[in-house]
Amino acid sequence: MEQENQRLARAALTRLIEPGDLLGAALVDVTGPEEALELMCDDSRKPTAALQQSVSDRLGDAATTRREVRLETGFQRWRTRVPDLAPQRDLDTLRRVGGGFLGPEDPDWPEAVNGLDLARPLGLWWRGQVSPAVGLARPRVAVVGSRDASEYGIRATHELIAPLMERDCQIVSGGAYGIDAAAHRAALGATARGEAPGVRGAPTIAMMAGGLDRFYPAGNESLLREVARTGLLLSEVPPGSSPTRWRFLQRNRVIAALSTLTVVVEARWRSGALATARRAAELGRTVAAVPGSIFSANSAGCHRLMHEVGALPVVSGGDLLELLSLEHSHVSTPHGGMSGRQYDDLDVPDRLLFDALPLRQLTTVDQLCRVAGLSLGAVLSGLSRLRACGLATEADGQWRRSAAK
Amino acid sequence: MEQENQRLARAALTRLIEPGDLLGAALVDVTGPEEALELMCDDSRKPTAALQQSVSDRLGDAATTRREVRLETGFQRWRTRVPDLAPQRDLDTLRRVGGGFLGPEDPDWPEAVNGLDLARPLGLWWRGQVSPAVGLARPRVAVVGSRDASEYGIRATHELIAPLMERDCQIVSGGAYGIDAAAHRAALGATARGEAPGVRGAPTIAMMAGGLDRFYPAGNESLLREVARTGLLLSEVPPGSSPTRWRFLQRNRVIAALSTLTVVVEARWRSGALATARRAAELGRTVAAVPGSIFSANSAGCHRLMHEVGALPVVSGGDLLELLSLEHSHVSTPHGGMSGRQYDDLDVPDRLLFDALPLRQLTTVDQLCRVAGLSLGAVLSGLSRLRACGLATEADGQWRRSAAK
Repeated sequence: MEQENQRLARAALTRLIEPGDLLGAALVDVTGPEEALELMCDDSRKPTAALQQSVSDRLGDAATTRREVRLETGFQRWRTRVPDLAPQRDLDTLRRVGGGFLGPEDPDWPEAVNGLDLARPLGLWWRGQVSPAVGLARPRVAVVGSRDASEYGIRATHELIAPLMERDCQIVSGGAYGIDAAAHRAALGATARGEAPGVRGAPTIAMMAGGLDRFYPAGNESLLREVARTGLLLSEVPPGSSPTRWRFLQRNRVIAALSTLTVVVEARWRSGALATARRAAELGRTVAAVPGSIFSANSAGCHRLMHEVGALPVVSGGDLLELLSLEHSHVSTPHGGMSGRQYDDLDVPDRLLFDALPLRQLTTVDQLCRVAGLSLGAVLSGLSRLRACGLATEADGQWRRSAAK
Repeated sequence: MEQENQRLARAALTRLIEPGDLLGAALVDVTGPEEALELMCDDSRKPTAALQQSVSDRLGDAATTRREVRLETGFQRWRTRVPDLAPQRDLDTLRRVGGGFLGPEDPDWPEAVNGLDLARPLGLWWRGQVSPAVGLARPRVAVVGSRDASEYGIRATHELIAPLMERDCQIVSGGAYGIDAAAHRAALGATARGEAPGVRGAPTIAMMAGGLDRFYPAGNESLLREVARTGLLLSEVPPGSSPTRWRFLQRNRVIAALSTLTVVVEARWRSGALATARRAAELGRTVAAVPGSIFSANSAGCHRLMHEVGALPVVSGGDLLELLSLEHSHVSTPHGGMSGRQYDDLDVPDRLLFDALPLRQLTTVDQLCRVAGLSLGAVLSGLSRLRACGLATEADGQWRRSAAK
């Protein structure tokens, strides 16, 4: 009951306090959610000096500089939304479409977001046929990028994600157009095609900026419905909330915190995906970026991240599995031509000898000594080795390279 | 006279000892070039135990493991070429076409190659209208890559080199097809167009694998003639020597050693350019690579280098100048849309307020407080700021966003 009241209070607070409002978060942290909610709902109550001090201390702990610390300013804005409060209705709304609300006290709460400290969400609204317990239990990889992705970015997204699904990873993204949509699709597609036999829970999580009662953007509605059917939608804000620009920027921090590894596939020089990557780096998570053409504006942000936060260049799903310290069975390493490898495997004198062998006309052993700069013994033993591996041919005591080498 | 004899002896030794033959280099180092030459030319002389010991010690110093150390084996191969010796004729050949020979004792010797220690060339044959003194005096950048370069690689090469020429750098490459040729062309082109006003000496150096009496490969003859006219050709081997595969691999180490910075523009998974880059890294030189499509085999080697030797991804000449610690005047940083930058410059409450402003219909201040979650004071002062920078419009006491924002 106590816990149920706490959850209801937190659900209510997600309507009053904007995501990333650290003053609000500090207050909730100090008083607990029920007391914080009561303070906000009762205009007659003023914060005491002792409370102000505790909240200021808590903000100081979070190493927040130049932050607003005056509770009175906070109450002025939080109270403007009190008339809109209806937490039980909000919970009912999500229960109807298949979903609910998680607070940090819930056993299913994703511990990973606690890395955000004070910036951790007050709670998470969820929507999906899969329960959060199953939905939030596997290695998570954030795959993010431009809304106006190029064909290159879309192809790269699918290429990178397929091997991750074979290893039962979960793809986190933001449900937006472009790379986000491609990431969700790649995860769902691999699961639907049975390429991810190990996946029993949600193959993908969409961390949304607005309320989960509707699907936004409209063009992604059928995709997001599919995510809700086999995966999970999450949001910090209650049903009915618009996906504002601020909330888009704020939900990036949750994407970063949820994931062990954040990969930026395509991003312009200025892009929300960079904010996600920087936040991931600040949290000590691994950050990777997909390289691309130096002439593509869509890759400029990826290259920027390699410089600015040391994002690791990744070219395949195998690279990502390595970063996750998951073994991968098939070697994605391309191989060069056979003749190049054979040459490198030769001893130095045999390489010099091979270089000296003419392609067409035959030559004498004496001539080979001079041209290769090798002793008679080295040439004779080398010729027999080269012949043994099919690199040299002899006729009437004279030598040339074997054909097609 | 003493020095002249040394130079003549070294010129002769470049015919007997293959590039990268460390046993030969150690012998020359221990006895000096004249004595080493005499030993090789006189079949009756056997190396003494004391000499063998000194040479073994010298090889040990160079931290060479599993190297052949027996001088007798060396003499067997070096002596095979003694009949071909004609150092004065070789010097005359190069003097005729405009060139000569440099030993480490010469004042014009490029000190940078001494970083190779025992693997430093015995000497360098040069060809060009520019004297080595002028030709080897500026910040050198090696630009190397695939022979079968793509159009992307060629374009990238020109893009990266142009800003370097404005800052009087010198481009070192291998004179081969593909990226090498593009690099020489870009350097020559910038100079010819007067875009490199500071360049008085050689804009580019071609480090060749064969003798400098002829231009190889044939398809690059006119390019290499142009390099000889305004730049410099270098080689470890005397005129008449073939550009063997071994010599191609060996000259890579000289390209790396000559340059402060080595850039790989395009390279396959197995490519000679990677050897150059790895050698550069071993020498403690900066190594950079140009990112490209993850689907392009021509970029696979570049991405490999980022992982294996920590090659820095570079996308512009400005990036290279930064690595060289040379300032560059024009900022190559692309910029995002104006509205993105304006938004980021706003304070947090003003961003929330801007998000809350409707695009078309007007809204009241009270409604804005609720939607934005801001106090009345914050909304009123915020609206006046947003109006001042053209982001908000008021009519009859109601508000919306300004058009086209």
